[in-house]
Amino acid sequence: MDIATIVGIISSIGLLVASMTMGVGVEAFLDLPSILIVCGGTACATMISYPLRDCLNSVSVLKHAFVTRPVTVGEIISSFTRFAVRARKEGLISLEPDIRRIREPFLRKAMELAVDGLDPEAITEILETDIAFQESRHRLGADIFQSMGGFAPAFGMIGTLLGLISMLRQLEDPSSIGPAMSLALVTTFYGAILANMVFIPIAGKLKARSRDESKIKELILQGVLSLCRGDNPRVIEQKLFAFLPPSARISAFR
Amino acid sequence: MDIATIVGIISSIGLLVASMTMGVGVEAFLDLPSILIVCGGTACATMISYPLRDCLNSVSVLKHAFVTRPVTVGEIISSFTRFAVRARKEGLISLEPDIRRIREPFLRKAMELAVDGLDPEAITEILETDIAFQESRHRLGADIFQSMGGFAPAFGMIGTLLGLISMLRQLEDPSSIGPAMSLALVTTFYGAILANMVFIPIAGKLKARSRDESKIKELILQGVLSLCRGDNPRVIEQKLFAFLPPSARISAFR
Amino acid sequence: MDIATIVGIISSIGLLVASMTMGVGVEAFLDLPSILIVCGGTACATMISYPLRDCLNSVSVLKHAFVTRPVTVGEIISSFTRFAVRARKEGLISLEPDIRRIREPFLRKAMELAVDGLDPEAITEILETDIAFQESRHRLGADIFQSMGGFAPAFGMIGTLLGLISMLRQLEDPSSIGPAMSLALVTTFYGAILANMVFIPIAGKLKARSRDESKIKELILQGVLSLCRGDNPRVIEQKLFAFLPPSARISAFR
Amino acid sequence: MDIATIVGIISSIGLLVASMTMGVGVEAFLDLPSILIVCGGTACATMISYPLRDCLNSVSVLKHAFVTRPVTVGEIISSFTRFAVRARKEGLISLEPDIRRIREPFLRKAMELAVDGLDPEAITEILETDIAFQESRHRLGADIFQSMGGFAPAFGMIGTLLGLISMLRQLEDPSSIGPAMSLALVTTFYGAILANMVFIPIAGKLKARSRDESKIKELILQGVLSLCRGDNPRVIEQKLFAFLPPSARISAFR
Amino acid sequence: MDIATIVGIISSIGLLVASMTMGVGVEAFLDLPSILIVCGGTACATMISYPLRDCLNSVSVLKHAFVTRPVTVGEIISSFTRFAVRARKEGLISLEPDIRRIREPFLRKAMELAVDGLDPEAITEILETDIAFQESRHRLGADIFQSMGGFAPAFGMIGTLLGLISMLRQLEDPSSIGPAMSLALVTTFYGAILANMVFIPIAGKLKARSRDESKIKELILQGVLSLCRGDNPRVIEQKLFAFLPPSARISAFR
Repeated sequence: MDIATIVGIISSIGLLVASMTMGVGVEAFLDLPSILIVCGGTACATMISYPLRDCLNSVSVLKHAFVTRPVTVGEIISSFTRFAVRARKEGLISLEPDIRRIREPFLRKAMELAVDGLDPEAITEILETDIAFQESRHRLGADIFQSMGGFAPAFGMIGTLLGLISMLRQLEDPSSIGPAMSLALVTTFYGAILANMVFIPIAGKLKARSRDESKIKELILQGVLSLCRGDNPRVIEQKLFAFLPPSARISAFR
Repeated sequence: MDIATIVGIISSIGLLVASMTMGVGVEAFLDLPSILIVCGGTACATMISYPLRDCLNSVSVLKHAFVTRPVTVGEIISSFTRFAVRARKEGLISLEPDIRRIREPFLRKAMELAVDGLDPEAITEILETDIAFQESRHRLGADIFQSMGGFAPAFGMIGTLLGLISMLRQLEDPSSIGPAMSLALVTTFYGAILANMVFIPIAGKLKARSRDESKIKELILQGVLSLCRGDNPRVIEQKLFAFLPPSARISAFR
Repeated sequence: MDIATIVGIISSIGLLVASMTMGVGVEAFLDLPSILIVCGGTACATMISYPLRDCLNSVSVLKHAFVTRPVTVGEIISSFTRFAVRARKEGLISLEPDIRRIREPFLRKAMELAVDGLDPEAITEILETDIAFQESRHRLGADIFQSMGGFAPAFGMIGTLLGLISMLRQLEDPSSIGPAMSLALVTTFYGAILANMVFIPIAGKLKARSRDESKIKELILQGVLSLCRGDNPRVIEQKLFAFLPPSARISAFR
Repeated sequence: MDIATIVGIISSIGLLVASMTMGVGVEAFLDLPSILIVCGGTACATMISYPLRDCLNSVSVLKHAFVTRPVTVGEIISSFTRFAVRARKEGLISLEPDIRRIREPFLRKAMELAVDGLDPEAITEILETDIAFQESRHRLGADIFQSMGGFAPAFGMIGTLLGLISMLRQLEDPSSIGPAMSLALVTTFYGAILANMVFIPIAGKLKARSRDESKIKELILQGVLSLCRGDNPRVIEQKLFAFLPPSARISAFR
Repeated sequence: MDIATIVGIISSIGLLVASMTMGVGVEAFLDLPSILIVCGGTACATMISYPLRDCLNSVSVLKHAFVTRPVTVGEIISSFTRFAVRARKEGLISLEPDIRRIREPFLRKAMELAVDGLDPEAITEILETDIAFQESRHRLGADIFQSMGGFAPAFGMIGTLLGLISMLRQLEDPSSIGPAMSLALVTTFYGAILANMVFIPIAGKLKARSRDESKIKELILQGVLSLCRGDNPRVIEQKLFAFLPPSARISAFR
């Protein structure tokens, strides 16, 4: 569970409601047609912008903003040092029973290719294509939210222009100017809220997750290649530790 | 047929008309000179910005925003595994009759080069140049729409400035300020609508199509090179599956 | 002659004059000091931004926005297939009399290097440096116009600020506010027009020309290298066709 | 201690307080709800945007904006020339006692790998991964502050919209418009101050530090590789001097 | 002396003073506190953004915006053809007396390395690192001015917000609104002037100089490598001419 996302969303809603209540009350900011223009416009523009499959994919990618991965980098490195020690003594093939117990799917797939006896070039080619396309799929999800973060303020402005054009047309009654303008600004307000509290932050979290995921997969690729080459377990650990900040490097050999 | 584009366009028009009707009515937003300034200005600026051939090309590329490709990635991968099994038994040359039945033009061309006996380096060179230039042609189409998405709000603002300068010049009658300003804002409104409901989303869809198309062509290139090298059909399938999300990998061998 | 540029410029001027005439008339938009601030400021900022030689170079590059190249890609490809057929029979040296008749300077230079007997590595090095620096020179021209497209609206805003500060200082006579503000906005109007009708579109056209020019030169480089290597004429044609869209590939061998 | 950061922060606060005092006094700019909206909103958006670990990491990276590194490039280069002279005479292994006295952790780690007898390829691989990931960690810290520099003005604008919508709703008393609008603008003011005096400059300093750090680590990598290859000490010095501006190249051999 | 920079600065000041005089006079635009906010704020933000050493370095880099280099590309190419002719007859070592007379420091250093007998790989490594870090130092100078071009309008806006908040607070006397607003806008005016007449153009000129400098150094590197390889003088000239526009290629052999 990604606590930061949850806390961030709940606090920001609380902050917003508190700010509105201190003004003229929440109901001044609720207007159904305004919500329809901003949300509907953003949804339409996004559907025209991206293939339907990618739009649906972005919904499934969205869950990555709320959950964290179960296996940590430290665990993966210590698995590799364990594998390396065993492979040196009993050969790569002896790792087969361990592989079935690996929870991390990419590590399992990489180890399977290695134990199947594919040469390092083929393993590199397969896993690098996999990393590149997984990254492009995740980045696409982030891109869609980023686009929505651009469309929302645009439709907020379109709604405000709509309101202003209507209001200025019938300027006879000056006492109605204030409330009409207030209402016109509500769409701009919605657009800014949606972009800066929802779409842009979500896109940021998805990009961060994708970056972390690619880093872990590159580490796994390096580890498997080192295993295939029969590197010394201490050298493998040194190589994989380079992916970590110095403070997180806790060696299995000391 | 790309349903997302169609649904997006129809819903956004509906949304817009509904919003206008709830205000002072649609006719307050219809003004021929305003339409001329925004659409004409955008068209002129685009014609100065891009060679005539590219402008016309962008119209023909536009259809990619509305149609989807008939052949899926899954079908292409299963063709390759079929080809690989046959080529192992009877040689690459035995694939010749199958090639004529391939619907996908790039796959057909790639297979023809392979069966003609060109060496992998020449095939890679020809197909990579083809992929790069097809991508640059498609991206150019998207770029033109992206530019139009920048010009439209600029000409909207130019139209509004035109209206404001005229209005402020003859400020004698204060009752005419409202309607004059309302009219001046209509061009800004058109510019925002055209950019955010038409040009930018269309550019986005064209970019997405170009990305998908290049991905499929890279997959075909990898597949043909593996065929030429005489790779094991299961290894070819593994290599091509790396282009797909894990959930879409349905092996022909299980 | 690039018809799109000419038509675009004439139509946009017509559009502008028509729009002004429908308002309070063209004379409301003509103000010499405003023209001086926007054009003069943009010119000064550009002179500080770029070396004098580059500013003058941009004027000479400007002509590329109005003319199109006399030799087409199709003609160059058919020249190469003709050369390849002859070179196979009579040797590269037999092409010498043809080279003098080549109109395209880069093709002539490339063929001269090949017939002089330079090795492919030296030819590649010389021609790639040539392509890279010609591209950087052309791109510089486009960059200068792009910068002017950024300076023009900035000086438009500076002029408007100047007018507003003056006007607000002497607010005694309310009837003078309208015309003074109208005049202040004229510089913003000029800045927007210059940027969106002149500088940014011209920069776009120059970039498009530079892109096309580099593509043709890369094709020539590939063709000359294939000639040196003594490739089969049909393979040369296949390689060069990859630079073209499928619809424009008209083979000389069928 | 980075004096520029300290002086910059103190002067900017002084400048701000002086400017406020010359106006209506500091208290007109102090409003607790406004501070809450801008700071709270920025904090929430940042927490949704980045994983909690990265947010906490950015706080620890923040200290790099205030301190400078204890070891200079000149000292590192002179260490390398000293090491090279000794290694030529007595072998790489003779450097072992010196290594323990090295204060710079990356230099110590690099020298340990060299003295342990790893081959240059493995050293390059380990150290380049280390440089790349340290750079990405530091850049992430800068990115977080850059994002906050984007969120702060957005929440400033959201606060102002909130105030304007409330104010326009109850426009009966015209004498209250001024103070209400003044208060509404205070959030925009906070957002601009926070972005331009705190977040964006801090992000800039962190990027500069990360750039310098990577440059020094690349220099150390080059130096260690030259040591392993047994280069002439004068050539090593020449190679490392290329990382310095000409004015800072003070040779140990003259 | 770079005439364009000098003429640009003098003309823009003249233009500005003339425009102000035609309005309410220059004194309406002079306000010491406004100057302090914009200049002081920009200076503080820049000091927080960049290490002190880089800030001071940017002042010394600033002179590159006003001077042009004494040695032209044509002179360097003709030096190389002269060197190549002599080196062919009498050997590289015979160039030693000429080297001491070379005015261009980078050419001298490159020739010294060649005459000292370093192998081409070491020369390439040393000179490419030198080019890369000189470029990064110069680009840093340009970056600092570019940042100042972003901070200046931001502090202009902060000053205007400060003025507006003060003014709106005490709205009793409507006759004071005009002059107060006029004064508030003066900081925005300063920010726009500083950014568009000083910082952004200076950054542009520094980038142009850095680009030219790197191009010349790359040419020198190519020339020295060709000399070491003992290339034919005509081929060296051909290779170096590729760095020049066709119109500037005046051969020494015709």
